[in-house]
Amino acid sequence: MSPRSLFLLSSSRVHGYEFLEHAKEHLKEFLTKRNVKTVLFVPYAQNDYNKYTELVENTLSPWGFKVEGLHVKQNPIQAVLQAEALFIGGGNTFVLLKALYDENLIPIIRERVLQKGIPYIGSSAGTNVATLSIHTTNDMPVAFPPTFDALRLVPFNINPHYLEPDAATRHKGETRDERINEFIEYHKKPVLGLREGTALLVEGDKAVLVGDRNAKLFMANKEQVEFAPNTDLSFLLNQS
Amino acid sequence: MSPRSLFLLSSSRVHGYEFLEHAKEHLKEFLTKRNVKTVLFVPYAQNDYNKYTELVENTLSPWGFKVEGLHVKQNPIQAVLQAEALFIGGGNTFVLLKALYDENLIPIIRERVLQKGIPYIGSSAGTNVATLSIHTTNDMPVAFPPTFDALRLVPFNINPHYLEPDAATRHKGETRDERINEFIEYHKKPVLGLREGTALLVEGDKAVLVGDRNAKLFMANKEQVEFAPNTDLSFLLNQS
Repeated sequence: MSPRSLFLLSSSRVHGYEFLEHAKEHLKEFLTKRNVKTVLFVPYAQNDYNKYTELVENTLSPWGFKVEGLHVKQNPIQAVLQAEALFIGGGNTFVLLKALYDENLIPIIRERVLQKGIPYIGSSAGTNVATLSIHTTNDMPVAFPPTFDALRLVPFNINPHYLEPDAATRHKGETRDERINEFIEYHKKPVLGLREGTALLVEGDKAVLVGDRNAKLFMANKEQVEFAPNTDLSFLLNQS
Repeated sequence: MSPRSLFLLSSSRVHGYEFLEHAKEHLKEFLTKRNVKTVLFVPYAQNDYNKYTELVENTLSPWGFKVEGLHVKQNPIQAVLQAEALFIGGGNTFVLLKALYDENLIPIIRERVLQKGIPYIGSSAGTNVATLSIHTTNDMPVAFPPTFDALRLVPFNINPHYLEPDAATRHKGETRDERINEFIEYHKKPVLGLREGTALLVEGDKAVLVGDRNAKLFMANKEQVEFAPNTDLSFLLNQS
């Protein structure tokens, strides 16, 4: 059985909540039951690493966890090798993935999470990079990474911040559903649309939807399916 | 003086109009005054090349222009070399740019448009690829092109389908303005936000906004500026 432990948030911000507050109890339990004292935070998806790390520190510290920024470490690879837990925050997915490749961190994070089982928290862009590829990000491609292949901690794609088409709009740009279906047309791979306020909790070979809203699964040649919170989504981990 | 002639549409579809109908008079004049009889259409941004070309043919043919699809040509490079005018349609910008590189069409289109002055019409993705790069597309990155550098027929970026942030939304995903400003933060280059219903007409070293709505210009370290229809935007062509 895989030792992996992942908490993949659609977003860190949800309407009506402070930063990460909507997931507070789940995140505390996720880290506490794995005896995590210190979280290594990866702020690469945003521009101001110090400010971003400070925000995470000010959030997790009152919950009882120490936070260290990967950007202040002399040797990032060594820091990941020694980390008790990783948190990769949101921002721009292209900028983030490029930075992970530039720092040669992809294989080492994969090994730590998939072989050693250190807990991984991702939100938004940090969730995108945890999946098969960043082909289903919503972000503007402001940076050019060497590939769109990502950490492949799960064998499918996620669309964070998933939201319904607005039926009343007069805008003719594509809807989110149209964009996701375009991906599926070219790649024939499933995409889990995670609405804000939800997360996917993966423990070994089990996956479950966490939060207060449904998730929507898009698949090739099949109807979309809505899943309610607490649904067992482990079948998604068995994609070839 | 550059012989270039470009008609860069934000979108081919606008609320309340048939396909391309909102730009009918401008497009007819653009082609007629350059004696164009036949338009070579590039359907690469969409999946069904035949259907897409048929739609364009059914639209332009009653206006008096013949339409040929690039995808049915034995030798696409030869077809571009012989084309009287080019129209690159919208769809997915990543798919389109990848196809243009796969077919080795980038240098030949540049030469035909910038040196020989054949008229170029772009809409949405076809407008994105006409600019410096596709860094400011709205599309989902469903394909991986060899670079985000594009045709560079103009020395700045455009954001097609530009629209205001929705002040009432509870969604926490980034707004269009936030995304464009992210690009500018990394690249320090101007971006012209073209609302649906508008286009940029470039004739030699002159550029003018066409349509019934403003365009918004985003620049590094400067306030955004709104420009009314018919404003002379030639200064944008003098970016270094």
